[in-house]
Amino acid sequence: MDQKLQMLLDTVKKLIRRGAFPHLTKVIVKSHPADIAHIFRYLDLKDQRTLFNLIENPETAAYVLSELDHGTGAQLLEQIDKQTITEVLQEMPYDDAVDIIRNMPEELAEEILGIMQDEDSDEIEQLLLYDEDTAGGIMSTEIFSLNQDLTVQEAIEAVQQAGDVEMVFYLYVTDDDNHLVGVLSLRQLLTVSPARLLKDIMVREVISVRTDVDQEEVAQLVARYNILGIPVVDDANRLVGLVTVDDVIDVMRQEATEDIYKMAGASEEELLYGYKAFKIARLRLPWLVTNLFGGVITGYLMWRFKATLAEVLALITFIPVITGMGGNVGGQSATIVVRGFATGRIDMSTLRQVFFRELRVGMIMGAVCGLTIGVVAFGWHHNPYLGLVVGMAMATAMTVAATMGVMATSFFKRIGIDPAIASSPFVQTANDITGLLIYFGTATLFLPHLR
Amino acid sequence: MDQKLQMLLDTVKKLIRRGAFPHLTKVIVKSHPADIAHIFRYLDLKDQRTLFNLIENPETAAYVLSELDHGTGAQLLEQIDKQTITEVLQEMPYDDAVDIIRNMPEELAEEILGIMQDEDSDEIEQLLLYDEDTAGGIMSTEIFSLNQDLTVQEAIEAVQQAGDVEMVFYLYVTDDDNHLVGVLSLRQLLTVSPARLLKDIMVREVISVRTDVDQEEVAQLVARYNILGIPVVDDANRLVGLVTVDDVIDVMRQEATEDIYKMAGASEEELLYGYKAFKIARLRLPWLVTNLFGGVITGYLMWRFKATLAEVLALITFIPVITGMGGNVGGQSATIVVRGFATGRIDMSTLRQVFFRELRVGMIMGAVCGLTIGVVAFGWHHNPYLGLVVGMAMATAMTVAATMGVMATSFFKRIGIDPAIASSPFVQTANDITGLLIYFGTATLFLPHLR
Repeated sequence: MDQKLQMLLDTVKKLIRRGAFPHLTKVIVKSHPADIAHIFRYLDLKDQRTLFNLIENPETAAYVLSELDHGTGAQLLEQIDKQTITEVLQEMPYDDAVDIIRNMPEELAEEILGIMQDEDSDEIEQLLLYDEDTAGGIMSTEIFSLNQDLTVQEAIEAVQQAGDVEMVFYLYVTDDDNHLVGVLSLRQLLTVSPARLLKDIMVREVISVRTDVDQEEVAQLVARYNILGIPVVDDANRLVGLVTVDDVIDVMRQEATEDIYKMAGASEEELLYGYKAFKIARLRLPWLVTNLFGGVITGYLMWRFKATLAEVLALITFIPVITGMGGNVGGQSATIVVRGFATGRIDMSTLRQVFFRELRVGMIMGAVCGLTIGVVAFGWHHNPYLGLVVGMAMATAMTVAATMGVMATSFFKRIGIDPAIASSPFVQTANDITGLLIYFGTATLFLPHLR
Repeated sequence: MDQKLQMLLDTVKKLIRRGAFPHLTKVIVKSHPADIAHIFRYLDLKDQRTLFNLIENPETAAYVLSELDHGTGAQLLEQIDKQTITEVLQEMPYDDAVDIIRNMPEELAEEILGIMQDEDSDEIEQLLLYDEDTAGGIMSTEIFSLNQDLTVQEAIEAVQQAGDVEMVFYLYVTDDDNHLVGVLSLRQLLTVSPARLLKDIMVREVISVRTDVDQEEVAQLVARYNILGIPVVDDANRLVGLVTVDDVIDVMRQEATEDIYKMAGASEEELLYGYKAFKIARLRLPWLVTNLFGGVITGYLMWRFKATLAEVLALITFIPVITGMGGNVGGQSATIVVRGFATGRIDMSTLRQVFFRELRVGMIMGAVCGLTIGVVAFGWHHNPYLGLVVGMAMATAMTVAATMGVMATSFFKRIGIDPAIASSPFVQTANDITGLLIYFGTATLFLPHLR
């Protein structure tokens, strides 16, 4: 948190403690709504309610609410009376209101849609039909468009009269049936003769998406073409909404967090639950229990080789490092493939190259680590054969792990399972098992020299 | 890759194979430069050179080059003659050119700066002075600003005459000494009387950053205030550049990838090296070797308890699952803290709450997994005391691991070491060690019943 926000937070906390509400109201009016929203999450629920109720301008309240985490927002809403919530929601752009309503308990959502004016609730119920993770789910519907038969002069007048619609920087042009047919920039309007028709000066190649396109793909398009917004059309190419770049930023942040969380077996949903430990534990447990059974299988394997282990007890001291390093290398190549898929840097056609690269990288790293651990083992237990066994097993296990990371992730991707969730427990267990098999196999080969 | 791009790629490959260059040139002219840039990475180096040399418009070539990965771009540049490179770089916005020059081998960069026109090379050398990861390092310097003493009419004329400067959607207003004093939207200009002065209608509160602000902070500001660009000023508040939202999208994507890579002990730099296995291995090895020595320490610990293990061989079968689960849980809480720091969702003031949440979550998950593994151990080796020892050790180890994940990451953050890199080897080793100590400690306590 930067200094300015820290000062604002300290001031707000002090004023709440003192009950200096008129002063606090002034501070709210003078601050940027985004700043108020930002310090909200550092207050406890009681102070949040106090502060929120002091926001007099419903527009500011709406801004604050739409910028809050879903978790914080949901907790706060439980504390506020339904009439106020409804008023605030009606001040918000529909897409933000829908976002908040989606994360409410179902009964509360229904109650609030009941209180709303018909026009608003119709629009919101319409938007709720789209899948949350698609263009339709994140688009705003208050979109400014112009008919292609207008003159430049008429278009400028329309812009002047337009109220507070979502940022007007691209002007979308439609025909009489609301089909999207072109696009113009505001600056372009200023540089041509006022009598010309829009259809003669507009750019006809418009990058647009259909309502059912996945939000991640929408974000990739915006990033690829460096555009500030992308119009959303229905099946018949009729203009129905606009995804702006600030929505895209939210999507990218969310998708990145999701991937990071998933690979560790956590979930973005956790953020909804704030500090509710039981709900969070329930989200993480299935992944952990999968790993648990992987660990039991590894243990069973060790049990099968108990005779060898009992005979040469020094062997057990290198089990953690061999399985651990296999897990690390496998994790690295899995991570690179998972992230490569997500950013579009890797796809099925480049996978072969990635596989062979990871194989080579694994061999090199395996050679270095195998040599190191071999020397350590020799020095420690004064047996050159033990050094040889441990070093060879390590090098082989790391090489296999590197390819396993690529194969497992792409296999899961191909059969339609999210590799970010599935690859980690699988890669880990698979590497533990192959690592141990390689280790015990090599050890059995040299057993006479190890005794 | 979507269908349209797949078709373009197939067409381009076919035309290159046939040597149908005039046809290929036509395809290039008709395609969006971003699409050409996108399919580039699916071609081998030879085809890339062929295609690049067929791009006749240097502006398109510049666009293609600036959209390429740094790795692909650097490899391609080695294949092209220096005169052409220089021409293309001079067509690019300075910030993109600087980006490419930064990633060139040093000698090539110097040679090219030598060939350039003085004006361009001065500007680029100026920009090279800023740290790559700061506002100065990512800003564009071709910024459109207006003097505060202009009338609205004069401002509109200036906009009409402005060439192709970075997207004009905010108009920044300066005083006679180029200090940033206000901001206007283009739409605002259209809605007020032409005779008014800019200083009377501009918004005086401008969100800006200094050149040395970290790019991650810049991205957070743009996301927080939902703005399309943020002006960059020097120490004396003089306007020197502009960071636009497309730069911010690149930053966010890059930072997310960086965090994900770092946690696995890989590095974003790898992308620079394409398929060069030795260079990639060298980037990953330091992290792996750190883990290697962690593994050796764990092994040493097992050696110290070898008498206990030799006596009750069944104990070794649960070592992998106990250390593994500790590592998983510690990894989860470390991930949540690392990502929380990166997105600004967690900071030092909320850390206490996060710590206690993870402690509670760890206890719940430890109880569930401890009970499960306890039953498994009892059923397998038919000894209730073994079940008790394994279960208790698992529950304790998981609880400790959960808190360790939070403590280690925040400790590294506090002393200024990147927790994304450091926490993983540390958490893993620490959890292996505490897990084993807990396990062996409990086992020693119940040793008479385990024999």
